[in-house]
Amino acid sequence: MTRIGFIGLGIMGGPMAANLVAAGYEVTGYNRSQPKIDKLIAEGGKGARTVAEAVRDADVVVTVLPDSPDVEQVVLGSDGVLANIASGALLVDFSTIRPDTTRAVDEAAAEKGVRTLDAPVSGGEQGAIDAALSIMVGGTAEAFEAGRPVLDSVGKTIVHVGPAGAGQTVKAANQLVVAGNIGLVAEAMSFLEAQGVDTEAGLRVLGGGLAGSKVLDAKGPKMADREFKPGFRLELHHKDMGIVQAAAREVGVATPLGAVATQLVAAAVAQGDGSLDHSGLFRQIARLSGRE
Amino acid sequence: MTRIGFIGLGIMGGPMAANLVAAGYEVTGYNRSQPKIDKLIAEGGKGARTVAEAVRDADVVVTVLPDSPDVEQVVLGSDGVLANIASGALLVDFSTIRPDTTRAVDEAAAEKGVRTLDAPVSGGEQGAIDAALSIMVGGTAEAFEAGRPVLDSVGKTIVHVGPAGAGQTVKAANQLVVAGNIGLVAEAMSFLEAQGVDTEAGLRVLGGGLAGSKVLDAKGPKMADREFKPGFRLELHHKDMGIVQAAAREVGVATPLGAVATQLVAAAVAQGDGSLDHSGLFRQIARLSGRE
Repeated sequence: MTRIGFIGLGIMGGPMAANLVAAGYEVTGYNRSQPKIDKLIAEGGKGARTVAEAVRDADVVVTVLPDSPDVEQVVLGSDGVLANIASGALLVDFSTIRPDTTRAVDEAAAEKGVRTLDAPVSGGEQGAIDAALSIMVGGTAEAFEAGRPVLDSVGKTIVHVGPAGAGQTVKAANQLVVAGNIGLVAEAMSFLEAQGVDTEAGLRVLGGGLAGSKVLDAKGPKMADREFKPGFRLELHHKDMGIVQAAAREVGVATPLGAVATQLVAAAVAQGDGSLDHSGLFRQIARLSGRE
Repeated sequence: MTRIGFIGLGIMGGPMAANLVAAGYEVTGYNRSQPKIDKLIAEGGKGARTVAEAVRDADVVVTVLPDSPDVEQVVLGSDGVLANIASGALLVDFSTIRPDTTRAVDEAAAEKGVRTLDAPVSGGEQGAIDAALSIMVGGTAEAFEAGRPVLDSVGKTIVHVGPAGAGQTVKAANQLVVAGNIGLVAEAMSFLEAQGVDTEAGLRVLGGGLAGSKVLDAKGPKMADREFKPGFRLELHHKDMGIVQAAAREVGVATPLGAVATQLVAAAVAQGDGSLDHSGLFRQIARLSGRE
């Protein structure tokens, strides 16, 4: 039986660990707060008191953490993952972090004889619960094949997009397009409302043409109804836009629309909307026009 | 038999007039250049030597013209449509023009006892040939019902979105979202290429998540292949972004992403790419990063 050490049992990690238990893996979980560990034990997993204990006997170590510094600390820190993991093990990081951090982790892991996959996910809490996540995977072809059964137990659309860091890079591109498109739909909705147009009919005919998108279908009606319960929180998208901007600068790529989207998301968070769904960016667009 | 006076037999108007002939209407066409009129006659229509002659005996007058000044001149000008149209007739304008111009036309028409529909289309030359256009219709409910058989003969997705000008307003929102989304996909593609990521795999996994859109599906592969044959020309989208910006200013709505998209399209046209498909906006994004 494959033994999995699982670090990070939060909104996403918790249900993912439960799905791995359900798939027959021996999962030993660690989290900073004990109740999340107790929940995993109740679901059939095991609990660890430290990262070291979770990692020591694992064939596969999984991390699901909020941000780049968390991954650096948990994986690279003293008595962290790499200080305790067995040579030959596989490290799968589902966190959304900076591609350069991912590559630094991969290099440090290689020195220990540990293979890595960066595997950021899309699909939100419901996708994690349903094991229906989209997963953008970076790493060697051999590591991808080795990790495939684990990925299949938590996701549905699983694409190997390139070497270490490539998963994070594609996730960054995803967040760029999503934030920008939410902003564009918000601008279009504000414009249609100000013009007195029936937005339900407007969304219907826009969705039937080249303006059609998943953002328009999923977020347009939320904007019309001013219903911004998360979903994916603006403050997390704010974090991700920082990753996008840093990663684009790293390779000298200008993203004029991404830069404006980044500022709009930052302004929304600064004005207190960080805990709303990212479709709540509509409020920032509306505020700019004195309409909220 | 309903008699239609048809003004503007260009790339879009030509096949639309042919479809109306095929649907059994008596179509009398006028165009500034004679060969387009000859083509309509060969297809079973009639030719007119002036706007007045095309309009005089018509139950429905159709205009398909490039820009707002063209509509003002042809409809409002001396010896134009309104100077010659019969009271009780219906004027259907398929042109993409400023909503305020449309409302001015509607008011002038009302004084003559003429009902109007603004009915800008989406779907391009192929959609016009196939009678499969999406049509965003503004006007009274009574005018919409009266015009419905004509609209059905040239389009597929036909939505009445509000009073006079509302069709133009929704088309402006459409062009805002499309231009911005093309720019976002171009930024994401430039970023992925610069990062050395497999863009085919990247587009596949992006398309499966919240970043998915018709622009991503239809234009992403064109950008990857640098294949920018029109389609819908950048110089026409440039014209439309002027309409978007003017219409948004009119109602005091700020469109920060739309403003940047407008500038990017303007720069692309200024640098000689106006005759490319609008997916050719990719070249402008790539140029900004020294990548084209």
